[in-house]
Amino acid sequence: MDQSTLARLEATIAARRSADPDASYVARLHAKGLGKIAQKVGEEGVETVIAALSGSADELVGEAADLLFHLMVLLGARDVPLARVLAELDRREGLSGLAEKAARPRD
Amino acid sequence: MDQSTLARLEATIAARRSADPDASYVARLHAKGLGKIAQKVGEEGVETVIAALSGSADELVGEAADLLFHLMVLLGARDVPLARVLAELDRREGLSGLAEKAARPRD
Amino acid sequence: MDQSTLARLEATIAARRSADPDASYVARLHAKGLGKIAQKVGEEGVETVIAALSGSADELVGEAADLLFHLMVLLGARDVPLARVLAELDRREGLSGLAEKAARPRD
Amino acid sequence: MDQSTLARLEATIAARRSADPDASYVARLHAKGLGKIAQKVGEEGVETVIAALSGSADELVGEAADLLFHLMVLLGARDVPLARVLAELDRREGLSGLAEKAARPRD
Repeated sequence: MDQSTLARLEATIAARRSADPDASYVARLHAKGLGKIAQKVGEEGVETVIAALSGSADELVGEAADLLFHLMVLLGARDVPLARVLAELDRREGLSGLAEKAARPRD
Repeated sequence: MDQSTLARLEATIAARRSADPDASYVARLHAKGLGKIAQKVGEEGVETVIAALSGSADELVGEAADLLFHLMVLLGARDVPLARVLAELDRREGLSGLAEKAARPRD
Repeated sequence: MDQSTLARLEATIAARRSADPDASYVARLHAKGLGKIAQKVGEEGVETVIAALSGSADELVGEAADLLFHLMVLLGARDVPLARVLAELDRREGLSGLAEKAARPRD
Repeated sequence: MDQSTLARLEATIAARRSADPDASYVARLHAKGLGKIAQKVGEEGVETVIAALSGSADELVGEAADLLFHLMVLLGARDVPLARVLAELDRREGLSGLAEKAARPRD
């Protein structure tokens, strides 16, 4: 897995926020405001649901990419680094590992 | 950014799919079927929208982590590796870089 | 409240399903299939959420109207009369009335 | 179609807003705030999408009833009467009727 994709994407999104809205989709979304960016995340969530239930694997890949992209634009718009979200996932993974260990006797 | 988080999470999710549903949330989701997993992605999308518009940064981090986690469970349930989604993002980034170059004269 | 609105709208939607897609939005949605109609309902749900949290009353009215309209197109596409949905709401209201009566002693 | 259902439901919802949260689901939703009510509308939108694509007619009826119910709670929480939404649908229907007449020559 090319794990640098998301880091690079985050930098690109940050750089384009202040670009010319005529030349950059990210700048255009920011010009429309947080509500519009959030709306895109919600809509891509719905489209991912539909692709998962009735689309091909390629369609699911496309919608999941749209969802991730707009989620990163939304995080950027609220000045939340993706690293905080990944750290939260790590934290839960740790807790969950402990939970699995604790639960083991019942297996 | 700890970029190995998603790769590790993907492996954990794959390992837990066949676990005891009483001991694993991932196994429980799988037991309920694709519709239920897709529903969670849609719901977490909505909760991310609400956190972005009216929640704290911590709340947004929590909801974005929930969304990413359930998206990865959904991709796993359709046997789509996250690497395909990241490759699609890379591909678009490349196209977009070309588009930005092509658009440069208008700046 | 002009309660005949939804009955009239349901009839109009049914009549337009077989219209020329170039002349009718409903026919166009049907031509795109159930997935596209469902997608519109999900998207309008998200837009209603956003209007409720950060829009004016007029914006909320507009989004709620969009949501109701597309919900009725979706019901029509699955051949489910709105009357069945209203009957289900009546049924629950009855149960809920009974529940409130049962709960009254605690007040 | 029992067209008085929505009017009666709207009155019931208004009456229960100030009820004891322990005895009334509507009061409980209001106690949790507008964000939580909006979240329910978004979630029921997603569940309606899923029922439309992969559920039975009965499941779609149940989810559409949930969606309508929570939409009415949301409208009530913003003090928007359902009559305004129905009037907006009537207004569009009128415009659309005119549009269909104007478009007739192309048929």
